[in-house]
Amino acid sequence: MDLKSKIRAVENFPKEGISFKDITTLLMDGEAYDYVIDQCIELTKDIEYDVIVGPEARGFLIAAPMSVKTKKGFIPVRKPGKLPAETVSYEYDLEYGSDVLEIHKDAIKPGTKVLIADDLLATGGTVKAVTELIESLGGEVVGLVFLMELTELKGRDLLGDKVVKTILEYDI
Amino acid sequence: MDLKSKIRAVENFPKEGISFKDITTLLMDGEAYDYVIDQCIELTKDIEYDVIVGPEARGFLIAAPMSVKTKKGFIPVRKPGKLPAETVSYEYDLEYGSDVLEIHKDAIKPGTKVLIADDLLATGGTVKAVTELIESLGGEVVGLVFLMELTELKGRDLLGDKVVKTILEYDI
Repeated sequence: MDLKSKIRAVENFPKEGISFKDITTLLMDGEAYDYVIDQCIELTKDIEYDVIVGPEARGFLIAAPMSVKTKKGFIPVRKPGKLPAETVSYEYDLEYGSDVLEIHKDAIKPGTKVLIADDLLATGGTVKAVTELIESLGGEVVGLVFLMELTELKGRDLLGDKVVKTILEYDI
Repeated sequence: MDLKSKIRAVENFPKEGISFKDITTLLMDGEAYDYVIDQCIELTKDIEYDVIVGPEARGFLIAAPMSVKTKKGFIPVRKPGKLPAETVSYEYDLEYGSDVLEIHKDAIKPGTKVLIADDLLATGGTVKAVTELIESLGGEVVGLVFLMELTELKGRDLLGDKVVKTILEYDI
């Protein structure tokens, strides 16, 4: 299936000079969306994992359907103040300023094998933060899967020798 | 399956006196999560719809897996500034202040039959706003499905004679 033709480029979003890959046009096509989730599952079928972690909000759109189809548990990583029970936080640098992500402290037991799923691997900052949160609770990140990768931004370099799978690569 | 036993009550979140229904403990159980999505699909199987709309962010956790399993398209409703292409907005009142939701202007064609899916029907304010957005683009909301309903808050009253299905009812 030609997935790239279903992803729309929106110019100058979120700021001047950026060509944003808008997956909403793909998600509107139920057959294509299902195919994407099946591809994510297929690419990671040799990885042994217990749960899938997805960061808010677009990460939910990949991680949650994967969780339902594989019947592995789903664990959200969210912006501050959104998770109701006790959390651990991780602050990470952005190009301008910083951002914070949180996970429930009791969501990951020591030794839990975690697959991270998200829509986009760009600089890798977000999933690096997600990895730090999981590891701070004793979990093990055994793999990461993304719908899209912007290869020029070299996000993989931040992720060490972890297994990283992507469906679509963009050479921006 | 006893779903209520898998949902955790977190007291005094997001503010004093509220007993928050935390579904993250259910979502961590892959079998239970898959069962919830199947129930949402089963409850709405007699409704004819073209697409599923889910509001950010917890709504994504119900609407997106439903979309993948039914192969109906998924359309997100998001907070301001998150959707990259041209949007329409709807501002609605909260207990204190107001909130704004957006949808892509070209996401709904006139006559499109829409099912709204979300985790929780409380006062109904959010899904009423989602309904207004869809109808402003000429779409028809043919049904709504929720994992949980707080019946005492009478959210159904805001939704007129629309078909509303819920898996779990709480008499708070």
